[in-house]
Amino acid sequence: MRKSIAIDMDQVLANFYKKMAVTYNAAFQTNLTEEEFLQTTLGDLDPADATKFFAIINEPDFFRDLEVLDADSIEVVRELNERFDVYIATAAMDVPGSFNAKYDWLREHFPFLNTQNYVFCGNKAVINTDYLIDDSPRQLTAFKGQGILYSMPYNAEVEGFVRVRGWREIGEYFDIVLKI
Amino acid sequence: MRKSIAIDMDQVLANFYKKMAVTYNAAFQTNLTEEEFLQTTLGDLDPADATKFFAIINEPDFFRDLEVLDADSIEVVRELNERFDVYIATAAMDVPGSFNAKYDWLREHFPFLNTQNYVFCGNKAVINTDYLIDDSPRQLTAFKGQGILYSMPYNAEVEGFVRVRGWREIGEYFDIVLKI
Repeated sequence: MRKSIAIDMDQVLANFYKKMAVTYNAAFQTNLTEEEFLQTTLGDLDPADATKFFAIINEPDFFRDLEVLDADSIEVVRELNERFDVYIATAAMDVPGSFNAKYDWLREHFPFLNTQNYVFCGNKAVINTDYLIDDSPRQLTAFKGQGILYSMPYNAEVEGFVRVRGWREIGEYFDIVLKI
Repeated sequence: MRKSIAIDMDQVLANFYKKMAVTYNAAFQTNLTEEEFLQTTLGDLDPADATKFFAIINEPDFFRDLEVLDADSIEVVRELNERFDVYIATAAMDVPGSFNAKYDWLREHFPFLNTQNYVFCGNKAVINTDYLIDDSPRQLTAFKGQGILYSMPYNAEVEGFVRVRGWREIGEYFDIVLKI
């Protein structure tokens, strides 16, 4: 029986922080760099700022034009999709305004994936796959299978997970050799 | 550890067929009764009709005003939610236009459920709960836990599943005694 892999979207496939940095600076008249944002998570915002910022990213188009985080992901996910049941598992319930933008983004950038394998959820304890690739230690802890932590500055101190730095390393973990 | 239950939406919580019958008759100038529709599934439509009909039900508001299928569901789901981790698992990827209507419908009719436990998916093989209550034998076969078939005329001939007829029976299955 084929094994299965669930893949998170934001900060694993899609570059959320790059647009978030620009958007946040505009909304709060700050001048923080993308690198400074990458030391923090949205949970670090004070409550009033968080409410305002979530309203902005909940706009229907916010997630539609995010860049692909790592160009290698296209080829690696395509290869994985040949050998595994690949699901996309994104915590979209935090930003219900994003549903259609996320759906359309996946159709554009990963058109070879089956839309029946998209999962818009909250708590990833509900995901029944052999592997989950995610940047969130909280979600990987809730998940019942083998977690793979997508390395980001804000999770650099976290221990106890298999850690991968980019999609080339994910390919290596699953014995995929990139052609380029 | 608490056990977990996933609950389908259409034709388990929401009365999809009642609105579908009216909508279909208007679109195709037919005069079929709700009972006649309940002998069939959308998979029985010929391809051209299916394309046209899916475009209609994919309109953003189609799923927003469905009636609650069985009034007992409110109390039973509330009781289940006290004792189990209750998830809502709906095959929304068939009708991506429905995402926000389904989210808002759940917020209105089952406001006590945690939105983090909503799952909009396709193939329910990905759902990791102990139970799944669903009207689709195909989804229950894909699901890895204990399936519970919500009885409908179009699945009446299917054998091999625990079958429940309405939410009072679901309550009994989980030892819940309704107060009314």
